[in-house]
Amino acid sequence: MILGKVIGSIWCTQKEDGMKQLKLLIIEPITWEGGSIGQPIIAADRIGAGQGERVIISRGSPARTMFNKDAPIDAVVVGIVDSLEVGEEH
Amino acid sequence: MILGKVIGSIWCTQKEDGMKQLKLLIIEPITWEGGSIGQPIIAADRIGAGQGERVIISRGSPARTMFNKDAPIDAVVVGIVDSLEVGEEH
Amino acid sequence: MILGKVIGSIWCTQKEDGMKQLKLLIIEPITWEGGSIGQPIIAADRIGAGQGERVIISRGSPARTMFNKDAPIDAVVVGIVDSLEVGEEH
Amino acid sequence: MILGKVIGSIWCTQKEDGMKQLKLLIIEPITWEGGSIGQPIIAADRIGAGQGERVIISRGSPARTMFNKDAPIDAVVVGIVDSLEVGEEH
Amino acid sequence: MILGKVIGSIWCTQKEDGMKQLKLLIIEPITWEGGSIGQPIIAADRIGAGQGERVIISRGSPARTMFNKDAPIDAVVVGIVDSLEVGEEH
Repeated sequence: MILGKVIGSIWCTQKEDGMKQLKLLIIEPITWEGGSIGQPIIAADRIGAGQGERVIISRGSPARTMFNKDAPIDAVVVGIVDSLEVGEEH
Repeated sequence: MILGKVIGSIWCTQKEDGMKQLKLLIIEPITWEGGSIGQPIIAADRIGAGQGERVIISRGSPARTMFNKDAPIDAVVVGIVDSLEVGEEH
Repeated sequence: MILGKVIGSIWCTQKEDGMKQLKLLIIEPITWEGGSIGQPIIAADRIGAGQGERVIISRGSPARTMFNKDAPIDAVVVGIVDSLEVGEEH
Repeated sequence: MILGKVIGSIWCTQKEDGMKQLKLLIIEPITWEGGSIGQPIIAADRIGAGQGERVIISRGSPARTMFNKDAPIDAVVVGIVDSLEVGEEH
Repeated sequence: MILGKVIGSIWCTQKEDGMKQLKLLIIEPITWEGGSIGQPIIAADRIGAGQGERVIISRGSPARTMFNKDAPIDAVVVGIVDSLEVGEEH
């Protein structure tokens, strides 16, 4: 999984049937200190992540398994981060 | 998923059986402000995305699940973007 | 999927059983204008792609589904390109 | 798989049901000489890896197969490294 | 698949059950001319690849399918290279 920050939302009317009723967020990958790294990704969210929150994103096939067979989801918010702790030497 | 823009089409006569009757688009990954990022990818499209439109692309195994077992599709257009909203600080 | 060019072939005597009787090509990822991008990959070919031809490559799990359960194939030639068309502004 | 070092931990209260009771570690990818390479990833750990230990990380669908169908895990600690040996010319 | 060279071995006592009795090699991705490219990966080997040999590596879900459901393998040696041939213009 990777660490990210919710920076926005995205909407589509015309879409694959398996994408219906899914909330899609724009996520910016970040370091544990909060700096932006890499390109934003679009992830489905079922747990209510809000603008600016730090989240954990799972990608690829593991992100799809929770959904119906016809939902072509390759990234999902799996947790909203309460806290993280990194060793002193970093 | 990633954000992209339809920039062209591609055709093959000789192909794997599972690729028959599929429309293949050339997609340029873009930022939410529209700038080009990374190398173009080729994605299957079943929802009628047109030249120049912004689309959401799903990749990998989740892109294949909607198709028959013998369709080796690793990228698909899953939505045509109506609008997106990114927080002010970005 | 990505666009590539067939630049060579590769042979192994000692291999996993699932790799037997497979033709393996060396593919150079290219832009639509033909320029080389990124590192070559090795892909299985069942449709007879020839040296120098432009091909479409599918990767990951979708590349394996067409083969037997014991064939550890993660890249396959899915089409030989006849033509492609990219919008004027690119 | 890749080589990494455990550099921290991360906690979420609000999460997908399949993520419950999983210990999540922050892993820094490293070279065999211990230098940091690439961005940290978040991996599930069931074998008790400790802060500062070198571990092997498996990613993608293979990381999920050991878990329940509803656990969207895309990275897991699969071994704690005892030793490694690299040829002299490297 | 990608081309690599066996540069070492790695051992773990504490590991996921599905990793038992697997030989793990350290593989350096190389170009067809033998130059090092990218970061080393750790791959399972069942075909007896030796130090310094050129091998073909398959990654992701296709690398896992040959193993038991509980083996979280995301990279495997699928062939030991006898020879490869690349067109003159490269």
